[in-house]
Amino acid sequence: MKLIRWGAADLEKTGVILNDTWYDTSAFGEDYNERFFKDKGLERLAAFVKANEGKLPVVPAGSRLGSPIARPSKIVCIGLNYADHAKETGAPIPPEPVIFMKSTTALVGPFDDIVIPKNSVKTDWEVELAVVIGKKASYVEEADALNYVAGYVLHNDVSEREFQIERNGTWDKGKGCDTFAPLGPFLATKDEIADVDNLRLWLTVNDKKMQDGNTSNFIFNVPFVVAYVSQFMTLLPGDVISTGTPAGVGLGFNPPVYLKDGDVVELGIEGLGSSKQQVKNYVKN
Amino acid sequence: MKLIRWGAADLEKTGVILNDTWYDTSAFGEDYNERFFKDKGLERLAAFVKANEGKLPVVPAGSRLGSPIARPSKIVCIGLNYADHAKETGAPIPPEPVIFMKSTTALVGPFDDIVIPKNSVKTDWEVELAVVIGKKASYVEEADALNYVAGYVLHNDVSEREFQIERNGTWDKGKGCDTFAPLGPFLATKDEIADVDNLRLWLTVNDKKMQDGNTSNFIFNVPFVVAYVSQFMTLLPGDVISTGTPAGVGLGFNPPVYLKDGDVVELGIEGLGSSKQQVKNYVKN
Repeated sequence: MKLIRWGAADLEKTGVILNDTWYDTSAFGEDYNERFFKDKGLERLAAFVKANEGKLPVVPAGSRLGSPIARPSKIVCIGLNYADHAKETGAPIPPEPVIFMKSTTALVGPFDDIVIPKNSVKTDWEVELAVVIGKKASYVEEADALNYVAGYVLHNDVSEREFQIERNGTWDKGKGCDTFAPLGPFLATKDEIADVDNLRLWLTVNDKKMQDGNTSNFIFNVPFVVAYVSQFMTLLPGDVISTGTPAGVGLGFNPPVYLKDGDVVELGIEGLGSSKQQVKNYVKN
Repeated sequence: MKLIRWGAADLEKTGVILNDTWYDTSAFGEDYNERFFKDKGLERLAAFVKANEGKLPVVPAGSRLGSPIARPSKIVCIGLNYADHAKETGAPIPPEPVIFMKSTTALVGPFDDIVIPKNSVKTDWEVELAVVIGKKASYVEEADALNYVAGYVLHNDVSEREFQIERNGTWDKGKGCDTFAPLGPFLATKDEIADVDNLRLWLTVNDKKMQDGNTSNFIFNVPFVVAYVSQFMTLLPGDVISTGTPAGVGLGFNPPVYLKDGDVVELGIEGLGSSKQQVKNYVKN
């Protein structure tokens, strides 16, 4: 199943994608949030969709897509999880995962603008596979970890490198600015993805290929990462773990290349669709 | 006004403290959450309490206290914000605040147990003044920052030092374990505290005084910190910023001293009451 949320920001309705068509599932009556995932919402939604086959309204053409999940309790990210990316940033291969957190206020839709924060000069891109947690996970074993996963979603882990690295710590400072977490287009349930540890992922800036990797190059794969994070904090249904980015970020160029007003970022992952963001300078509301 | 939440964990009801007596405000019909703070809940609650003077039920004796606010969108913490604490950890005085985040699943009541995580050998204490945000704050000026503050609350920023410092980063790894954020006993609205930058705060372990500081020794005071954090992420109503701890944590002793099963931690801040936690080893449910 492919889940979407659509409509005006903060007023999103729910939907599903069937045969490339967006259908409105508002009549199901629940947002795709913590309670939904906790209360076996995916199973119940599948039954609802089947029971209403041929009767679901189509989402109006031109509708905006929001994040395919409602605001989670947390977005946990893994740093330096591809050897080529660790190398380009000058960091050693980590002996165990780096964990940081992204303010959930950073969440936006997959085609929303990326806003360069006030006083930013180093706003950068990172295509990532994000995992959505399906049930409460604490001290999970690696062999059992995928049982705690609801599905997968494309994520641009937008990062301000000066804030992240040069402003006296920690990384969280450069990861949680507004619009820094475009998520989607859709949440693919686990059954949609045959092998999550073997998916091509890519990112372009103004049509120039910047990142082109494969999750087969993870240093720490999805089951390991889910189990690992659950040793340090309890993961709730609907929580997001973003699994790190391959080489090709702006910081890795010599000299570095950062986003500027008017740039267009496109990214995608095999099986998880693609997203596109226009870059805009911050303007006071 | 002093706000409390009481009753069984995850089923807390709301209340207020008047003349040292706990009153049940369930009839007000709202939890102390993001929507409450956003929709001028503090003003409306004050009017409700006044309108029901002498008629509010008293909270049953022996009731458990929960966190005085419902789970926020985020808990942001400031590291090394007292010069004496920076010194004891061997860190230099930071030129600007260190920011890290605490998983909100760490939140517990002020008299709940602290559970030593599985595989932990360095669980430590940190008495802190925490700020609760009253309205959405983005790019706030320091001179205006207190207008975005709802009130203050006592926080034990429990920390696992090995996870935080020796496990390949970032600090978030040692800050968000379950039970690592005992909050309360009550939220004091801003008007209850004459000068938030001049409050004594202390902590004992098994009745031995470990921390005894004053917020007058902040490197970065409350208005500065609120304004600063709002440059990097949007703060939502009900969000928490914990402002750092003075000297006297376990890590600062030579050799370091960490919490063990059976220990009792008590802490307090002038005007914000005191809390007490028993330390327990992790036991699989």
